[in-house]
Amino acid sequence: MVIYKSFSLLTTQYNDLIRITDEIEKAVAESGIKNGIVTVITKHTTTGITVNESLECLESDIDTFLKRLVPEDYPYVHARMLRSYGSTAGNPTGHLKAHLTGNHCVFPIVNSEMVKGDAQDVYFCEFDGPAKRTISISILGE
Amino acid sequence: MVIYKSFSLLTTQYNDLIRITDEIEKAVAESGIKNGIVTVITKHTTTGITVNESLECLESDIDTFLKRLVPEDYPYVHARMLRSYGSTAGNPTGHLKAHLTGNHCVFPIVNSEMVKGDAQDVYFCEFDGPAKRTISISILGE
Amino acid sequence: MVIYKSFSLLTTQYNDLIRITDEIEKAVAESGIKNGIVTVITKHTTTGITVNESLECLESDIDTFLKRLVPEDYPYVHARMLRSYGSTAGNPTGHLKAHLTGNHCVFPIVNSEMVKGDAQDVYFCEFDGPAKRTISISILGE
Repeated sequence: MVIYKSFSLLTTQYNDLIRITDEIEKAVAESGIKNGIVTVITKHTTTGITVNESLECLESDIDTFLKRLVPEDYPYVHARMLRSYGSTAGNPTGHLKAHLTGNHCVFPIVNSEMVKGDAQDVYFCEFDGPAKRTISISILGE
Repeated sequence: MVIYKSFSLLTTQYNDLIRITDEIEKAVAESGIKNGIVTVITKHTTTGITVNESLECLESDIDTFLKRLVPEDYPYVHARMLRSYGSTAGNPTGHLKAHLTGNHCVFPIVNSEMVKGDAQDVYFCEFDGPAKRTISISILGE
Repeated sequence: MVIYKSFSLLTTQYNDLIRITDEIEKAVAESGIKNGIVTVITKHTTTGITVNESLECLESDIDTFLKRLVPEDYPYVHARMLRSYGSTAGNPTGHLKAHLTGNHCVFPIVNSEMVKGDAQDVYFCEFDGPAKRTISISILGE
C-alpha cells in the first residue's frame, strides 16, 4: 500500500527551525498502514529536513552553527543578476545550508506508529524565508 | 513484505565510528526479502549513520574533521542548566555533528543481497558516548 | 512491485556536479510503478548525491564551499602509503566531502511521475574524478 500526502506551511523568519513531527505522525495514523516506512521530503532547495532534539537552545545552536559555516558576508557567485530569474539571486546561503542539512528523513512504522527515539523530532528548516513551503509525505507498507 | 528489526550496541568512546555493515547484511539475509530496499536509522540525536570506506586512517580524518567544524571550545547555548533534564546539557557538539552527518542510510536489495559498492561500509557514529544505542532496520520488498 | 536499475557515467573533472534528474525520471517512467518512492544511491565513497537548484553559479558556490570546509592543504591521515592499496591514498578530501553531502536521495512517485519541486534537480557529486561511477535506482510501489 502506498499513501501520499503533502502539506504546506508559511514560514515567518529568514532562518527558522519548525517542528513537524505532529503532522507526520498524523499522516501515519490516517494512512491505515500498520508496518512500513514513512519518508518526509521538502520540495524546495533553500530548505532542509533534519531530525534532532526539540530544545530552543539547540535550535539556536544549529542556527548559529550554520551561519558560522555559511556566512552571509562572502563573495558567493550565486548573488548576481540572473536572467532566468529576472532579478538578483540573493539566497546562496540558503542553498548551501540545504546542502549540509539534507532534504528528507525516513522512519519505520511498526504497529501503526512511527518508530522514533524519545529525543527525536523532525524539523523543517527554513533557510530563505519567509515563504510558503510544501512538504511531501510518502508512506509505504502493509 | 515488511520486516522490522532493531539492535543495540554499547559504545565505549566519546566519539567513535563503528562499522555495522555485518548486522545489516544479516538482517537482510534473514528477512527473506529478495528485492527491495533496506533503511537503517539511528534512534538518537547525538549519533549518526554514514556510509564510507572502512579504513582506520579515514575514521581518524572524519573524527578530526567534525571536531574542527564543531569545536568543543565554543560558547554554545545548549550547554547550561536545563530544567527538563535536571542537569546541565553537555552535548551540543554531538547534536551539531549529528546535523552534519545525517541519521539514516538506504541500500537496494537485489537477489536477496544488499547492493553496495566495494568500498562502502555503513558506520554508526557515536558523538556523545559511551552510551547504549539502538538502531532500527526496516526492510521493504518482495 | 520493486524495480532496480543502475547506470554508469564517466566523470571528467576532479570535482564536479552532474545533473542526473533525467536518468531518474526515465527510470521511473519505464518502471510502470504508478505510486511509490524512488531512491537514488551512489555506489562510491568519494562521491555524493544531492538535491539543489540547477544553476551554474550555484554549482560553483557548492564546489567552493566544500573546498573551503575541506581544504586540499591539510595534514590528513588518509594520505599515506596504504598496504591494502599498494599505493598512497590521495583522496581524503573526497571522503570528507561525501560525509557532508550524503550518498542518496528519495522522491515520491505519484501518478507515474516523480514528485519534485520546480527548482529541484538531482546531482551526482564527483569528489575524486575523473572516474567511472555507478548509481543505483530502486523504485518501490504499486
